[in-house]
Amino acid sequence: MTNGLAERLRLIVVTDPECGGRPLMDVVRAALQGGAPAIQLRIKDGDARPMADQARALLAETRRAGALLFINDRVDVALAVGAEGAHVGQSDLAATDVRRISPPGFLIGVSAESAELALAAQADGADYVGVGPVYATGSKADAGPPVGTERIGAIAAAVRIPVVGIGGITVENALPVTRAGAAGVAVISAVMQANDPEAATRALLRR
Amino acid sequence: MTNGLAERLRLIVVTDPECGGRPLMDVVRAALQGGAPAIQLRIKDGDARPMADQARALLAETRRAGALLFINDRVDVALAVGAEGAHVGQSDLAATDVRRISPPGFLIGVSAESAELALAAQADGADYVGVGPVYATGSKADAGPPVGTERIGAIAAAVRIPVVGIGGITVENALPVTRAGAAGVAVISAVMQANDPEAATRALLRR
Repeated sequence: MTNGLAERLRLIVVTDPECGGRPLMDVVRAALQGGAPAIQLRIKDGDARPMADQARALLAETRRAGALLFINDRVDVALAVGAEGAHVGQSDLAATDVRRISPPGFLIGVSAESAELALAAQADGADYVGVGPVYATGSKADAGPPVGTERIGAIAAAVRIPVVGIGGITVENALPVTRAGAAGVAVISAVMQANDPEAATRALLRR
Repeated sequence: MTNGLAERLRLIVVTDPECGGRPLMDVVRAALQGGAPAIQLRIKDGDARPMADQARALLAETRRAGALLFINDRVDVALAVGAEGAHVGQSDLAATDVRRISPPGFLIGVSAESAELALAAQADGADYVGVGPVYATGSKADAGPPVGTERIGAIAAAVRIPVVGIGGITVENALPVTRAGAAGVAVISAVMQANDPEAATRALLRR
């Protein structure tokens, strides 16, 4: 199960409303066409109703492609639409709370920028941890200073659950992240802003 | 059950971070001391973790007082902390979605400013509808034009579930709302901004 999950976490394409002036759904479809095994719907401070509508539309696409859908922060939206999981940061609901209100098998990702936070997330029932920003990034205004690939290695050595590197990851710099011990990478602009999101997804998966 | 619920909805004190420079918990405690049978925690665009922390602190107080706690919008927070219910607006999760992800007996309030929306909410499984703004209000920036007490009467006649009037309601103008057919009133500033929140709560309950 964990190995199967790690395989499906080798690339998480995180959505961004800023996706080159194209409809988000088109970009996600291209990423799925390129083989993206997981999508994360991320909308900051949006209303739950349109988010649930968008999540349902995405879920139809991810199911068709055999990919996982994670919802960022809004666990209620994830549960309501039947997404496979949710991703929560340190200021979102705690993994223990998410586990308490979700059905068996619901996948929980937790942002953890230190080994301590990653171990706590694992103890709280997280299925994977997102660690970053690995590199400098412009996609998340609230991201801290880059943690580098060494941190990825240290955290991957500390926990049993998969580690996913996030932040500033591109086709060019993805390889050192998985070489350091990450099961996969999460990207925003590398796919969302790509001229050819399908080709960018394929290129990321080849690394 | 419905009658018992209507009785407990005769006054819902909705929280506001703007509560006269006092700690919110002190104002809620005073409202509970004054007999408030229901509290709604309302935080717009806040992070879920501090909201859950605050909800748990509130729940300890409401349980002690035998009052209900509703969480505005964030159904996941309501479920995680074990609050009695959630209140959702027309841009929040739909009542059908809330019902699907919540345990039996979880109370769902829905904002509905027309009879059509109130009937839809009832069909979707809402336990009560909040109708407003009854009067002009400064507490909710996104509130529409006042609907007046006639609308309260029309909606109360149309649905079987309790109707709670909200918006611009004070000690002075609360009586026409219940006379028009509302089971109760929801107030923000009438208690949150009151010099004496306990006395204001008692005065509202006497109407």
